[in-house]
Amino acid sequence: MNSRVSRHVARCLALVAVALSGTAFAQPAADPLPSWNDTASKRAIVGFVEKVTKPGSPDFVPGPERIATFDNDGTLWAEQPMYAQLFFALDRVKVLAPQHPEWKDQAPFASLLKGDVKGALAGGEQAIGQIVMQTHSGMTTDEFHGIVKAWVDTARHPVTKQPFTSMVYQPMLEVLAYLRANGFKTFIVSGGGVEFMRPWTERVYGIPPEQVIGSTIKTQFEMRDGKPVLVRLPAVSFVDDKEGKPVGINAAIGRRPIAAFGNSDGDLQMLQWTSAGKAPSLAVIVRHTDADREFAYDRASSVGRLDKALDEAKTRGWTVVDMKNDWKTIYASQKP
Amino acid sequence: MNSRVSRHVARCLALVAVALSGTAFAQPAADPLPSWNDTASKRAIVGFVEKVTKPGSPDFVPGPERIATFDNDGTLWAEQPMYAQLFFALDRVKVLAPQHPEWKDQAPFASLLKGDVKGALAGGEQAIGQIVMQTHSGMTTDEFHGIVKAWVDTARHPVTKQPFTSMVYQPMLEVLAYLRANGFKTFIVSGGGVEFMRPWTERVYGIPPEQVIGSTIKTQFEMRDGKPVLVRLPAVSFVDDKEGKPVGINAAIGRRPIAAFGNSDGDLQMLQWTSAGKAPSLAVIVRHTDADREFAYDRASSVGRLDKALDEAKTRGWTVVDMKNDWKTIYASQKP
Repeated sequence: MNSRVSRHVARCLALVAVALSGTAFAQPAADPLPSWNDTASKRAIVGFVEKVTKPGSPDFVPGPERIATFDNDGTLWAEQPMYAQLFFALDRVKVLAPQHPEWKDQAPFASLLKGDVKGALAGGEQAIGQIVMQTHSGMTTDEFHGIVKAWVDTARHPVTKQPFTSMVYQPMLEVLAYLRANGFKTFIVSGGGVEFMRPWTERVYGIPPEQVIGSTIKTQFEMRDGKPVLVRLPAVSFVDDKEGKPVGINAAIGRRPIAAFGNSDGDLQMLQWTSAGKAPSLAVIVRHTDADREFAYDRASSVGRLDKALDEAKTRGWTVVDMKNDWKTIYASQKP
Repeated sequence: MNSRVSRHVARCLALVAVALSGTAFAQPAADPLPSWNDTASKRAIVGFVEKVTKPGSPDFVPGPERIATFDNDGTLWAEQPMYAQLFFALDRVKVLAPQHPEWKDQAPFASLLKGDVKGALAGGEQAIGQIVMQTHSGMTTDEFHGIVKAWVDTARHPVTKQPFTSMVYQPMLEVLAYLRANGFKTFIVSGGGVEFMRPWTERVYGIPPEQVIGSTIKTQFEMRDGKPVLVRLPAVSFVDDKEGKPVGINAAIGRRPIAAFGNSDGDLQMLQWTSAGKAPSLAVIVRHTDADREFAYDRASSVGRLDKALDEAKTRGWTVVDMKNDWKTIYASQKP
């Protein structure tokens, strides 16, 4: 550029800056959480974000330390009447049955194959463990990725008849986007299997696989026909639930979140861990209070029980979202 | 903005765009790898990056899939005559000795406390395991973070008398920055302890803690005086070396890298895993060939042995960096 052009460009840029500063930049931003009613919950979230992002404020938190963690089942998507991953496992039992003639006489598979889900699950955690191990191992990680993806694309929820990924909560999608727009890095920290979530979290939540933390089974590196594969073994490696959540967060992220969102006692330790940091923090519990639009359950539920964490929320002043009163819309698929 | 101002601003912006397109933007970019000689290694790295970032090219890889993984010891910083983490452990033995009177009569600690490092390490992996466990566990994760940080800030390498963090390779810092400038997410995948690296990798390499994968010991969530802590236990959780590297990459990232950099047989499986993806890939081995400026070692070295991976590099056409001939500068501290 010659110097005359340079000077003209500089003058123009200055004019553009002045013009813009007086208009677009000074206008109030659009509501970042339009599906939230203007209640205490929304004000707590917005107040926290404004506080930690305000340069010069004593509560300012530098960008790289803005870590926010989200439970998945019951916090980002529906978990009733049963975890989506368990529906997946039951569907896999049907698909795999021809390769397992022995299942016809073996609990819990025999009940399942007769359509008696309740009978199969009467065996409790041990039965569920057997079903999950048999359906989640024995293939390569690439194969499992494809199996999950195909299931998520076609499976329907038994009550709403919608894809499970349509039953994600619109208000929480807005929180995720709002936090990211304010320099936060958003992570999922779920008791669910990490490889059950990763095939779809980027598309559905905007959360890439490397920001998904979950329970894992062991995998083994093998060479097959000169090609390396990772084989999924029928052995638990890590359970990312309750006390496991802070352990998983530390192992995968290596810094403490400043914001955490959960909905059940399985999230209690993650909320405690987040609240105990030196920086300002936000701890949020999503409470399922809307039997008409979603489900209503807490202390007595076997899925997503919310009991101790609810008591502790009151003591510690955590934010408890009341889905019925705080949310205009529930599911992303119902977005007006 | 009123419409007259708007039109003026628009004209100005158009002029700015034209002016810039004819000059600054059309000039060749500054050399992104100035510490590299113009040899085949540099051309392989630059060629790969240009190929996968060119929109419309059959080799184009979308931004989120541009994952690059780097071994640490011997790939990003020096590992001779002994891994930095082992120097750290030996220093910790001295600090902790007053609390462990029994060490005076106990191998390998007794030899160490007499200054006989060689004698102490003669016990091989078992002795090293004992030293690492005793010095790396028993404290909270926050405490360990502080211990590592203080050591890294003060410790000096026995040969160069410099901080270990000054012995990072300038050409590799340039590769990290170059990849990130081209939309890559850079990860460390090291056999070293993840919590030994995280306190300083962001400052030294620009790699945040959540992008550091390494070996781990078990941690346990506990409440102490009403405050949650994570306590480091004397038990190995995961060894992120050899076959463990693809396992660790899959567990932490959940997608396959398209570029991987290593220097020893411990990196072989990571390079195989990276090369076996569907996308174009880059596999690089840093070969230590410069006895004058750094160290020269390969097939016969007990630290950072490079043997099988070197053979495989030849068969598969991986890029082998010859430090002596490919690098103008070795250490970041010597940057001209």
